[in-house]
Amino acid sequence: MLNDRDAVFTRTLALAEQAIGLSDPNPRVGCVLLAADGAVIGEGHTQRAGEAHAEIMALRAARAAGLDPRGATAVVSLEPCSHHGRTPPCCDALVEAGVARVLVASTDPNPQVAGRGIERLRAAGIEVELVGGAWGMAARELNIGFFSRMERGLPWVRLKIAASLDGRTALENGASQWITGPEARADGHAWRRRAGAVLTGIGTVRDDDPRLDVRLVPSALQPLRVVVDSRLELAPAARLLAPPGLVLVACALDPDGAEQASRAAALRDGGAELVCLPGAGNKVDLGRLLQHLAEREQVNELHIEAGHKLNGSLLRASLVDELLVYLAPTLLGLGREMAAFGPLSSLTEALAFGFTGVERVGADLRLLARRRE
Amino acid sequence: MLNDRDAVFTRTLALAEQAIGLSDPNPRVGCVLLAADGAVIGEGHTQRAGEAHAEIMALRAARAAGLDPRGATAVVSLEPCSHHGRTPPCCDALVEAGVARVLVASTDPNPQVAGRGIERLRAAGIEVELVGGAWGMAARELNIGFFSRMERGLPWVRLKIAASLDGRTALENGASQWITGPEARADGHAWRRRAGAVLTGIGTVRDDDPRLDVRLVPSALQPLRVVVDSRLELAPAARLLAPPGLVLVACALDPDGAEQASRAAALRDGGAELVCLPGAGNKVDLGRLLQHLAEREQVNELHIEAGHKLNGSLLRASLVDELLVYLAPTLLGLGREMAAFGPLSSLTEALAFGFTGVERVGADLRLLARRRE
Repeated sequence: MLNDRDAVFTRTLALAEQAIGLSDPNPRVGCVLLAADGAVIGEGHTQRAGEAHAEIMALRAARAAGLDPRGATAVVSLEPCSHHGRTPPCCDALVEAGVARVLVASTDPNPQVAGRGIERLRAAGIEVELVGGAWGMAARELNIGFFSRMERGLPWVRLKIAASLDGRTALENGASQWITGPEARADGHAWRRRAGAVLTGIGTVRDDDPRLDVRLVPSALQPLRVVVDSRLELAPAARLLAPPGLVLVACALDPDGAEQASRAAALRDGGAELVCLPGAGNKVDLGRLLQHLAEREQVNELHIEAGHKLNGSLLRASLVDELLVYLAPTLLGLGREMAAFGPLSSLTEALAFGFTGVERVGADLRLLARRRE
Repeated sequence: MLNDRDAVFTRTLALAEQAIGLSDPNPRVGCVLLAADGAVIGEGHTQRAGEAHAEIMALRAARAAGLDPRGATAVVSLEPCSHHGRTPPCCDALVEAGVARVLVASTDPNPQVAGRGIERLRAAGIEVELVGGAWGMAARELNIGFFSRMERGLPWVRLKIAASLDGRTALENGASQWITGPEARADGHAWRRRAGAVLTGIGTVRDDDPRLDVRLVPSALQPLRVVVDSRLELAPAARLLAPPGLVLVACALDPDGAEQASRAAALRDGGAELVCLPGAGNKVDLGRLLQHLAEREQVNELHIEAGHKLNGSLLRASLVDELLVYLAPTLLGLGREMAAFGPLSSLTEALAFGFTGVERVGADLRLLARRRE
């Protein structure tokens, strides 16, 4: 029995969270179907892309339990879809099921929906309430990357850094495994799992040869792995080419040019996709790369694990929305910095963020900070 | 009415905390006098050195209220003193007052007391319970510097650092005012207030010309200000010579040597005391300086606000017990580091601490970390 609005939206959002690592590039949505007396008759969340959305799952659950959704209230974290995508519109399913009332936490920013879902339900005689407020914010926050892609044409860019308390990400000799503890590393994989893509630079691949897949936590999907590799130097033996999932190599020179055609062919044979996005100084245009990831690869959240040079380039270009920093309770002295930029001439030029989360993770700290406009 | 042991020790420790910035170099002690029915008949905390201790204050308060302490229970955070220091022993006062029972959170580490206070009370027929446990730990924690000085002959050394999230304490051009916000700076003064001395290096004096007094929070005492100034370069016009309180300049050359005698005389005229503690490389022997501060200056907690060089020297010599780090939610890129040491050749050589406290202070974070043995 969920008679209290906060209780029912708490449950709806908890369902929506179960779509993390599953529904991308679709949003994470939860749905609870309530009988007139507040009894839960069905619930569900978005499945894999092309499979059922939250509302369909909840209706199916009700019917599977022999319960009739007619006259029920559907509580959804995001506005039901009104368009034919890879699945039929959820609005139609709710109308057909005879649902009497729909509570919506947030509208859908998808320009193909954006209020039309609510209109369509109302046109069919269903009472719709757009709740907004804290629950709208929570639904949006859970889909921060989806909103970013829909509203800005860019993924939500989260820069992950593991460092000592004095801000060192590696010793001068390059040693960085491991500065933080096992709990922080597993937590880092949980954040990778949220992401549609994990991005790194050719320097990190050369230094650490990471896999960049999600393996320390379970996940139904593996994010796309993206390597910024301006001169197409990625070795076909690089470990990140091996795990299941796709690899995209962004370069700044024509992959079919005479000098690099054989390297390009070897990478393509190894399963990588190549994209040429030249920018200033024969480097990959990072802004265009982000647009490409949003538009072509439908990446909602982009998780970056790179070295100080690429971190610096992204930060200088104001392309980072959020910092995810693990700090170990150690001092390392001389070594590699978090991000290579500067020197600044005044403290007023500091890149300004605001702390949004502080947690202990094992012996380390996890800090979240968002860009301040 | 304080019938519950946790309630009465909570109150006793709260009283003891009121001695911060007041009782140094004496420990911070609280005392609550309870009648047989649990009614509070008097309470007090340690006053300035040479003035009344907690027990005397509580007895006075009871008598001032016309209440008779005979048969009462005295609850004290630290073992009552048994020796004639600048004041007569508290044990004698409790015996004379006819107190029936004493609850003691922690023994006093002072070798002149160290259990003898409890013995003396018991010999006089008073029932004494040494409570220990969490309350003993809390009493010790509040007096971490006093315990350090008594047990190790060294102050408790707390290194304060204000930095950006990427570990920068200043830009390359030296600009550091201000990386953190006003709340963090006021909080830093509250930590200065705990300290018997605030220590810095000649480099910081030259760069920032700080006062290093306690002014953003009220304090009855001003800590001794200590400058590590191996070559006796401190300018008599330095601002830290001006505020009320004592200044100690530690150098590595004979202050009365021909070349520097006039500089030494100018500093002494400005009210500074000079101490010559030469160590390797014509630098001040920092270990001997800490011993000097404990033994001669009776410094319990030593608060350090220095630059990356002196920080590095202290850390390399394993002289830092605790880090007090304020992190601003900013990135500064190239700039000055927290502590100059290294490069290390392996991550196993990292200076290891353990986080003991994490708080938001305004827009910044305050991290406390203690050295791991």
